[in-house]
Amino acid sequence: MFANTPKPPYYAVIFTSIRIDEDRGYAAMSDRMVELVQQQEGFLGFESARETLGITVSYWRDEASILAWKAVLEHKEAQEKGKSTWYTGYKIRIAKVERDYEK
Amino acid sequence: MFANTPKPPYYAVIFTSIRIDEDRGYAAMSDRMVELVQQQEGFLGFESARETLGITVSYWRDEASILAWKAVLEHKEAQEKGKSTWYTGYKIRIAKVERDYEK
Repeated sequence: MFANTPKPPYYAVIFTSIRIDEDRGYAAMSDRMVELVQQQEGFLGFESARETLGITVSYWRDEASILAWKAVLEHKEAQEKGKSTWYTGYKIRIAKVERDYEK
Repeated sequence: MFANTPKPPYYAVIFTSIRIDEDRGYAAMSDRMVELVQQQEGFLGFESARETLGITVSYWRDEASILAWKAVLEHKEAQEKGKSTWYTGYKIRIAKVERDYEK
């Protein structure tokens, strides 16, 4: 359930979003993206939760891996559909994880 | 609902957790921490969602602000209680936000 990330440094993409009420193809796309992202070079894992606000944090080896994932054709189509249809608003922050600890 | 963060760089603390089923004083502490954190120098806002996994991302001006908040007495008590009682597990990642964009 927690992403099993390596020792820092590595990268986090913090994606916060508010969705429309209807599905409009979102669930199927979401399942497909989860499948696809795991094949990406440099992908380290992700954590996700949604109440009204949704937060998905994906973890990456480096910035190049993040940019490569952003450019994957199917993912670009999903990004477009997200922007035009599924999300009323979102915010994406790219951050370098410098340290971590856990219980 | 989205944290109204300034232009990067700034810091994010990504706190992912799994709670026990019982409240055991958690809700009251949580309300108090939300009240208290907003008085902290350098605090920029937070975003939170929980399904089974909870994710709270708080945003900070710099690392010094994060360390000062960690050392606040009431917050230290909450951290202790979190470790001993409220959370079956958690992971905390400190990250420097380098860029962001939004719809």
